[in-house]
Amino acid sequence: MNIPEFNIQAVSKTLNEALQKKIDLKTKPIGALGLLEQIAFQMGQIQQTLTPQLKKPAIAVFAADHGIAKTGLVNPYPQEVTFQMVLNFLSGGAAINVFAKQHNITLNIVDAGVNYDFGKINGLIDSKIAFGTANYLEENAMNETQAITAIEKGADIVSQQFEKGCNIIGFGEMGIGNTAAAALLMSEICNLPIETCVGKGTGASKKQLIQKIETLKKVKEKHGIHKNIMDTLCRFGGFEIAQMCGGMLKAAALGIAIMIDGFISTAALLVAYKINPLVLQYCFFTHCSNEQGHAKMLDFLNVKPILNLSLRLGEGTGCALAYPLLQASCNFLNEMASFESANVSNKEGE
Amino acid sequence: MNIPEFNIQAVSKTLNEALQKKIDLKTKPIGALGLLEQIAFQMGQIQQTLTPQLKKPAIAVFAADHGIAKTGLVNPYPQEVTFQMVLNFLSGGAAINVFAKQHNITLNIVDAGVNYDFGKINGLIDSKIAFGTANYLEENAMNETQAITAIEKGADIVSQQFEKGCNIIGFGEMGIGNTAAAALLMSEICNLPIETCVGKGTGASKKQLIQKIETLKKVKEKHGIHKNIMDTLCRFGGFEIAQMCGGMLKAAALGIAIMIDGFISTAALLVAYKINPLVLQYCFFTHCSNEQGHAKMLDFLNVKPILNLSLRLGEGTGCALAYPLLQASCNFLNEMASFESANVSNKEGE
Repeated sequence: MNIPEFNIQAVSKTLNEALQKKIDLKTKPIGALGLLEQIAFQMGQIQQTLTPQLKKPAIAVFAADHGIAKTGLVNPYPQEVTFQMVLNFLSGGAAINVFAKQHNITLNIVDAGVNYDFGKINGLIDSKIAFGTANYLEENAMNETQAITAIEKGADIVSQQFEKGCNIIGFGEMGIGNTAAAALLMSEICNLPIETCVGKGTGASKKQLIQKIETLKKVKEKHGIHKNIMDTLCRFGGFEIAQMCGGMLKAAALGIAIMIDGFISTAALLVAYKINPLVLQYCFFTHCSNEQGHAKMLDFLNVKPILNLSLRLGEGTGCALAYPLLQASCNFLNEMASFESANVSNKEGE
Repeated sequence: MNIPEFNIQAVSKTLNEALQKKIDLKTKPIGALGLLEQIAFQMGQIQQTLTPQLKKPAIAVFAADHGIAKTGLVNPYPQEVTFQMVLNFLSGGAAINVFAKQHNITLNIVDAGVNYDFGKINGLIDSKIAFGTANYLEENAMNETQAITAIEKGADIVSQQFEKGCNIIGFGEMGIGNTAAAALLMSEICNLPIETCVGKGTGASKKQLIQKIETLKKVKEKHGIHKNIMDTLCRFGGFEIAQMCGGMLKAAALGIAIMIDGFISTAALLVAYKINPLVLQYCFFTHCSNEQGHAKMLDFLNVKPILNLSLRLGEGTGCALAYPLLQASCNFLNEMASFESANVSNKEGE
């Protein structure tokens, strides 16, 4: 099985010194803009410039269904909510619509494999692999061809944004049952017991959470040892995760800054990271989700989230909400005066 | 000594149930928007409406000097940086200029007591009490008349914004040496040892930090027991803190939402809170500063900050950066579909 190849360049360190100097000479104490300084530095690295600009920001929301969700063993909401929420996205009524609109972020709603026939419908990107994955309690969620196709289709969506001039893209999702798939992927990739990875998702009760953990323990047991990361992806799914993974790898290959959302979006990145760890250099972690496994994923990747708002919604909402802080980071680098230009006294020796 | 009176109303609970219901019926799991839901709720309470709107957002940056700063015992930057930064604000080169511009926030630069004669200068609000406070190592930072005048002048600035239609205002500051005054106020009001309250400010070295702590210990000892909160304010200053305090109290009295910035801004709120604890109901805590005492101030007030970006700049930068999240909170409440309106299935029983 051939993993699609993505030619990702490590970000050059050529400008590091000049970037740091530019940041340090702004009219503020050294380091006083905290995380924004790190973001500005990284964005300068990614774009290889001292004046990074965010252009045509986009968020792609990948929606898909999970075979397991039909059983109700891992999800308090019924599977039909996936397609209903897709329709809600298309009519502008979801949280991500509101936040994307607020910040002029282009929203791409992607049918990556929803268990519903949308027919011809305005505004929906048809990237469907199948009508939901198979139930991993019984078989692999997807086959190899589906996994590869999903990665390629996700990459295509990012390429299309790139061609329109986009240089920053966020990855969001919708899919009833997908916190379960994300927990399984996390458990395998981070080598953590499943209990550590499973959370309440959209709001499981205590009883439902216990059932979810028991179910996923069985799944892990049934699937035993995996051959490699593509094998893991095939076993647990889902189509939205595979497409996000492909999109992230493509974005990094194109030098596009990547906004990672919450638990599921980060699970997709874990898969991408196993395929090519260089993808990480292009990523901004927009928030830490209230889904309990997310903080541990971020620890595993040794990265710091921008926001901590106890969100647990997905859809790319964290990306949209953090976007103005990425913009602010570029803005201060581009627009603030330096000590010299503003005639402000610096500390002695600086 | 008469403390100026501010007639602050406790926010009515009349709409609480309707607000919570409106939030809960949006197309998202209960609580999935985390802190944004709490912000939306509080903003609805403050404005007494199910459709809160943020109008003509403003930030006032109060600048003033501190007598102690002339000694260099508590500040790595020289006192002249205060007026130099005021000039930087006026010419648009500081961080707060960049962030306020990004979010269309009106910026008010206030000379609350800078040790510099600005003469006639465009864009600066003259609210000067004196050319800096007195050195609290030797005497009270300000006298009672100055304290009362400062509180009233701060209130006036907020009133002027209110008359222009502003219903949300942030409080920022600039003043070399003002982390020392804030630490002294915090120590007294929160009843904490001074070591717990003192931090590196604009970037003190380890040696400078020890000297700052030793100096402020002496100050605390010299001033002994205080009569009341106004006495405390007079002893430690500064004019920018007193004016912010008055501004906050006035904002609450007018029903304006208050954005609290970092360590100094919160110190001003501590004073306001001691004068009238109802002010707290109108406050949003925009971030937790990297200045080590700030988290403890927020704990004392039992409040949760919106951002955690390791900022330590002041100027109201935290307010400007958090503003889009306050806006997002109102937007989701006003613009998102409900389960019913979007035909999305809710969980059973909800």
